[in-house]
Order: sequence, then structure tokens, then C-alpha cells
Amino acid sequence: MEFNKISPQILDAIKAIAGDDAVLTGQESLEKYSHDETEDLVYYPEVVVKPQTPEQVSALLKLCNENTIPVTPRGAGTGLSGGALPVKGGLLIAMERFNRVLEIDEQNLQATVEPGVVTEEFMNQVAAKGLLYPVDPASKGSCFIGGNISHGSGGPRVVKYGTIREYVLNLQVVLPSGEIIWTGANTLKYASGYNLTQLIIGSEGTLGIVTKIVVKLVPAPTQDALMLASFPANELACAAVSAIFRAGVIPSALEFMERRGVEWVKEHDDIAFDLQDGIEAFLLIEVDGTNQDVIFADCEKINAVLEEYECRDVLFADSSAQKEELWRLRRTMAVSVKSNSVYKEEDTVVPRAALPLLIKGIKETGAKYGFESVCYGHAGDGNLHVNIIKAHMSDEDWNNKLKSGIREIFELTVSLGGTLSGEHGIGLVQKEFMPIKYSDTHFAIWRGIKQVFDPKGILNPGKIF
Amino acid sequence: MEFNKISPQILDAIKAIAGDDAVLTGQESLEKYSHDETEDLVYYPEVVVKPQTPEQVSALLKLCNENTIPVTPRGAGTGLSGGALPVKGGLLIAMERFNRVLEIDEQNLQATVEPGVVTEEFMNQVAAKGLLYPVDPASKGSCFIGGNISHGSGGPRVVKYGTIREYVLNLQVVLPSGEIIWTGANTLKYASGYNLTQLIIGSEGTLGIVTKIVVKLVPAPTQDALMLASFPANELACAAVSAIFRAGVIPSALEFMERRGVEWVKEHDDIAFDLQDGIEAFLLIEVDGTNQDVIFADCEKINAVLEEYECRDVLFADSSAQKEELWRLRRTMAVSVKSNSVYKEEDTVVPRAALPLLIKGIKETGAKYGFESVCYGHAGDGNLHVNIIKAHMSDEDWNNKLKSGIREIFELTVSLGGTLSGEHGIGLVQKEFMPIKYSDTHFAIWRGIKQVFDPKGILNPGKIF
Repeated sequence: MEFNKISPQILDAIKAIAGDDAVLTGQESLEKYSHDETEDLVYYPEVVVKPQTPEQVSALLKLCNENTIPVTPRGAGTGLSGGALPVKGGLLIAMERFNRVLEIDEQNLQATVEPGVVTEEFMNQVAAKGLLYPVDPASKGSCFIGGNISHGSGGPRVVKYGTIREYVLNLQVVLPSGEIIWTGANTLKYASGYNLTQLIIGSEGTLGIVTKIVVKLVPAPTQDALMLASFPANELACAAVSAIFRAGVIPSALEFMERRGVEWVKEHDDIAFDLQDGIEAFLLIEVDGTNQDVIFADCEKINAVLEEYECRDVLFADSSAQKEELWRLRRTMAVSVKSNSVYKEEDTVVPRAALPLLIKGIKETGAKYGFESVCYGHAGDGNLHVNIIKAHMSDEDWNNKLKSGIREIFELTVSLGGTLSGEHGIGLVQKEFMPIKYSDTHFAIWRGIKQVFDPKGILNPGKIF
Repeated sequence: MEFNKISPQILDAIKAIAGDDAVLTGQESLEKYSHDETEDLVYYPEVVVKPQTPEQVSALLKLCNENTIPVTPRGAGTGLSGGALPVKGGLLIAMERFNRVLEIDEQNLQATVEPGVVTEEFMNQVAAKGLLYPVDPASKGSCFIGGNISHGSGGPRVVKYGTIREYVLNLQVVLPSGEIIWTGANTLKYASGYNLTQLIIGSEGTLGIVTKIVVKLVPAPTQDALMLASFPANELACAAVSAIFRAGVIPSALEFMERRGVEWVKEHDDIAFDLQDGIEAFLLIEVDGTNQDVIFADCEKINAVLEEYECRDVLFADSSAQKEELWRLRRTMAVSVKSNSVYKEEDTVVPRAALPLLIKGIKETGAKYGFESVCYGHAGDGNLHVNIIKAHMSDEDWNNKLKSGIREIFELTVSLGGTLSGEHGIGLVQKEFMPIKYSDTHFAIWRGIKQVFDPKGILNPGKIF
């Protein structure tokens, strides 16, 4: 598809739709929108617009569709796969003014929000009413709910509460034609026509732009316990994961962290934490509920499992402050690791019991290709984030040889029954690895679906496939 | 689309693919496949075939696709929307020989099953390992898991555990072209490409034929409590439903039953149950978990809510036998009601708190159009099944006037934020009502998606839209 540039006439039309103050054009003001959190990639859009209503989004998409101008929708820009990068230039639609929580419906335990609401702010508003919206990616303090939908986001609590797929009931979506539809109904289930809600979730802004979101809420747990277990070996920590579930417990979080990650958080963040010799990995385990006895009983079951896997030490958080500190350890890990070196982050997911083989393979591949990695992630879901660190690797090796190593990691992931991304999406940087898992038939179906929604291919071009 | 008939040559080809003993042609042997549980509708296929392998299904679809012969996939034939009726004749593919549980993976809490496995048989095999597969439609004793996927099935436990959408991890699907794909990965989440797993679920056999299913399992609860609460008015029972969740409890089942339904079960089924005067409706409420104290505490919270809504009496089941009896009351209601009269069953779903307005409107519409109805269903999900009874209605009114009444019920459902079907699907009999909820844009997208998977439209033609 040959795209057109934004002419002065079209720029005027964009300003007429959204207002002069909603349109950015100078190099300096575009800088913020030229990158997300993906490696060191930079792509400038021609123009940024910040609409405020579905009708403005509709008019903008209609304009761009008629003039064959590429459109990149952007949430908070916290993505790790380059999904928000305007690789074809064109118009970037920044959704940051869609920042209102429109309704928290306490009768139906539902809420209606705009896509530019920061996830944690929404969680806090919901919590103030004794309710829980449990989809809390590590970046919850800055990411938008709209971006979470684009990637089918997860986070630590998926293991008990499910991904965002299980909370989104209905979406208002603007199509490239400018038509505005609701994908489904504000109901806990529906079986009427192909499920467009689930199709939009995870479609990375390539099918339409979400302008309103109806989510399910649940009663908030009133109690929790948090423990940090240390292990002499990565594989032992990973092996304990599936055993915990087999013991009949579903933790509300079950996170894996490599020693190196913890070290870097300590250097970067001044977290008080005594890191002992001989420890290679940690599991951060949370159990929540409404009854302290049940939580204690679950913790005891977990403890018994941990002992079987040579767990060295279990630290029980004994205050809210300590819980916060331990969670900060996990949540700031991504930033700490990335601030130490140039990096690439790969998002692997396998059936839980395959985690020991996955981590073993990742380290062997690193040894073979000469790269260091720091792994952490949502082990309870079988989801490991693999941060590959440039460190002393030559530019030549980093830019060329490394790719074969990453390919081997994904080949291993797929051979273990897994796939390329658990929650970060494919975006720009993972798409070359998609054929490891998916056949020409998959690509033909995906392209066919894309064609149905976006015949001219203007929406987030260059992503996924 | 002009379809072709099955010629003697094609019949020979079908026999060559699946074996002579797998092919039925005589009127008598086709009778069973000419109807499902939908009203009194009858449509004969030309030929029935019972393949046993994905490769046979592939060869059959390829043959029919090349020769433009309509294909209707069929599970157990327990559907209530006519999804398995071969309305265009052609070949009916009966999946009953795909009846193996291939693996129960206790390490990963996953299982791989074939689509012709009876839901309850699978649940029992899983339960024997201390695990739970919670998707148990009322017809669980006879329906197939493959059919459950076609409709995105629910059942009483959705309210706590979610629909089948939250348990299916990966599907092996044969496309009309004969290609066999896996839709995703055997992982608890994935964010790699448009989610084909979720697209196939609820597509009512119009996009492909499912031949293997990977589902998630969870640790089984070890305790439960069951109570039956009686109310002087339908609307009071319905109003109590959303209040229970607001009190911070998530029951594992929360079912509504009208008095008339209970009366008919008693007539039909000899269930020992003392039905007192002045009672119009019941809520059957189950709470499960792993700790008796927590369950008691939840029951007390529920009781306090019930009192606020003028609940007359709460019967606590005090033995497994009594629990079974109460569940039998609910589960046989569909059959009992239907055995009393010609009927039509409509499947309405609204946000929970709208249930009182829904049931009020259903009864008012009945009074206006002169029909009786018996309502029951998964009130915790906002899902009411409306059984319309012919009783003394004239054939003329039943065949013509009634349709306007049903339309009004669905218009009300949609105006309350709901939609046409919560779990029964659209199939044949609900499709005329789809425009009440969905626009031309929805239909265009759905038709476009259909075209991608099935360009010649051979798969389950005449359904959904």
C-alpha cells in the first residue's frame, strides 16, 4: 500500500476537526511521540493529534482513510514491542485526553472508562468503593487502559484473576471508515454473533480505535499475605511453580525474579534487602482472600511445596510497608534492568510445568551466543520476560548475531507448547519471529480479518504481520 | 450461494473417506439428525457422516468445498437455537465418534479432549483427580464439549468461574479448505496475532470444525453450601441478586426459578418438595470454597441480603442427597416445562441489576399478547431463559402474533443494556431478531469474517446472520 503524506490542506482539516491546540507538528513537540519503551527505536510521525471525543476520532479516521494516510494510535507509550511507533509516519492519534472514568456502577459491578485513563488511577477509584479491578501490569502507574486492551494485558494477578480479556465486557470502537460501533453488550456473557470484543482485544490498534470501555469489577479481597522465597537455582524456583497449583492453591500472584535483577534494583533504587550468597532466584508469592485462616492454610501448603524444591529462606512480609517494599522490588525491576544497559526484552510464555526447561534453555542459548540475560515475570502463568543485556557484546554481535539467539529462544518456547508473547504483543519487533509459531494459513486469516476492518490498511501499518 | 446436491459419486467419495459404516443415508437413520432441542423444527440432511479423525474431517470439508455442498456440523443435538439443523440439506458431520479424553495433564492443570466428549463425563474424569472443569450447562449429562464451544456455553457456575471462553486455551480447527490449524498455544494467555481461539468460540460451527480442545483446569473446591430461598414476588427475587454481589459475596451459583417451573418439575419428576402458597419465585444459591467457616460467613451475608428483599423462607440443604435433589429441581426444569406444551425458548441477558425490570417487562408483554411464560436461569449473570408456552393460544396467534411479543421482549432486553443470547447462541431461530441489537456495520464485519474462513459459505449455512 502506497501511503500519502499529510498535505497542508489535510493538516488544516485535522485542525478543523480537533482544534488547533490539539495538533502538534514541530520536531520538538513530536519527540515524545517518536518512541515508546521498546529498545532505542525512534520513528517520527508527521503530525500528532489529541482528540477528545469519539466523533473527533471518527472524523480523523474518515479523513485519513479517504486520503490514504497512515494512522498510529497511541496510549501512554509504555509498550515493549513497538506497537505505538509510527513506522510509516503519518498521523499519530494520542489518546491522552480520553482520560475520564465515566461511571462506576456499584449495582452491576461494572465501570465505563475512556482509554486514556491511567490503569492505577482507575484501580484506586474502584478500590475506594470496596471493589477490585485486578489487571495491573508492572507499568500500572503510567500505562493506559486502552493500551492494556491493545495488548490483551496481564500482570501479576492474572494467575488468580485472569487477563484483561476476562474483564472487558464491551468496547466502543471507531473503524477506519469512521463508523462508531459497540462490539457487544454490557453483560457478563453473550452469545450473539462473532465475538468482536475479544477480537479487538489484543489487536494492537490495527482494526479500530477504542474510545470507551466497559469492564467488570469484583468484590475486593480484604486480606492478603506476601512471601519472598529464595532458591539456590533458577530451575528449582521454576519447578516449584506448577507444584504450588498442584497442591490445590491458587495464589493471587506468583512472580519469578533472577538474582541479577534484584541486584540491579538494589543498585538503582536503594531498596533495603539483604541479598545472601548462594541464591540464584526468587519467587514472590501473594495469597489473597477474605479470611486470614484460609490464607494461613494456603501459605502453609505453599511452604511445604517450597521445601521440596530446596527453598533456602522464606521471608513473610509482616507489615503493609514491607509488602509495598517487596512489590516495589518486583515492579521496578524492568526499569532498573533497562537503565543499566542497552537491552532487548522478549516475552515468552509456556505451559507452567515447562518453565524449568525454558529458563535452562535461555541460559544455554546465552552462553552459546555470548549474551547475558535477566529473567523475571509472571511464573504462575508460565510467562517469563527475558531481558537481553548488551553489556560487553560488540555492536556487530548485538546487531546481527544476537538475532539467531533470540530465534532459538522462541523456537524453544514454541517447542515447549508456548508462544512468542504472553502479554507484550507482537508490534514491530517480534513480528519477524511469528513464522516460528504460525503458518501461512494463520497469516492469511489474520490478513483477511485486517482487510475486513481496514481495507486500505491505514491503521497502525507495519505491526503484527 | 447456490448449493449442489450430494451426487452418487460424491456419496462414494464420502464413504471412501470415512468408511461405509460411518455413513448414513436412509430416511429412518437420518431422523435422529433432523432435529435438535429447538421447538418442533425438522430439517433432514441428505447424508450423515461420522468421521473419527481430523484428517477425515479435513478430506470431507475439502470435498464439500470443492463441490459446493452445504455442511452442518453437529454435536449432541441439545441446542435450543437450531444451530445443528441442516436447513440447506447437504452433509451433516456428526462428531459423536470424537469421544476421547486424550490427556489430563496434572502438572499444567490442562486437559486435551475431543469435541464429542459428553461434558459431564469429562467433568467426572477431572474430578477424580481432585480438579475442576466448571463449565456445566443444564444439559451437561448429554451435551458435548464441542457444542459448548460453538455457543460459548455457560451454565450455573459462570457467575464465579466464568464461561467456557475462560477455560479454552487452544483449539484444533479444520477449515473449509481442509487445512488443519491450531488457533493458539497451550498457555494461560497469549498476545500473538488476532485471537482466533476466541473467534472460533461462539461461532456456531460457521467458521471451521473443532477437532481437538485444550482446556484449563482448576483445583477443585472441597466444601460447599446450597440454599433455596423463596420470595413472594419475581421482582423481589431478581432484585436480591445484584445486592448479594454488592455485599461482597461471589456465589458459585445463583439461579432464579419461577413457581410455575417448580410446579411442572413436581408434576413431571416426582421431586419431594413442599411448595407453599404465596410464593412466586425462588433463588437457588450455592457457595463453594475450601473452608467451612468462610462458606458459613458468606451464607450469613447472603441471608442478611435476602431478608431485605422479603425472602419468606430459606432452606439449607443438609446432606449431599438434598443438594442433589435441589439441583435436580433446577436442572430438569427445562425438560419438564417443555414436556408440558409446545414451547419457544428465548435466551435474554442483561446487566444484573436490570433483572427486576426484565422480568416485569416479560410478564407485561405476555399479558398484552396473551401468552404464558416460565422464566428460569442464571440470574447471577443477568441471564434469564424465557420459556413461552403455547397452552391455550390459538395456532394463528402462536404462529403470527407471538412474534411481535418476542420482538418486544428482545427490544426491552436491549434497551436495558443487554443482548439476545447469553449462552444459547443465535442459530436459526433468533437471527431475525439480531437487527434489534446490531447494525448493518456489525453484519458487514461478521459477513466479512465468514468470507475469510469460508468463501463459498458451505459451513452451517443459514445460521446467525
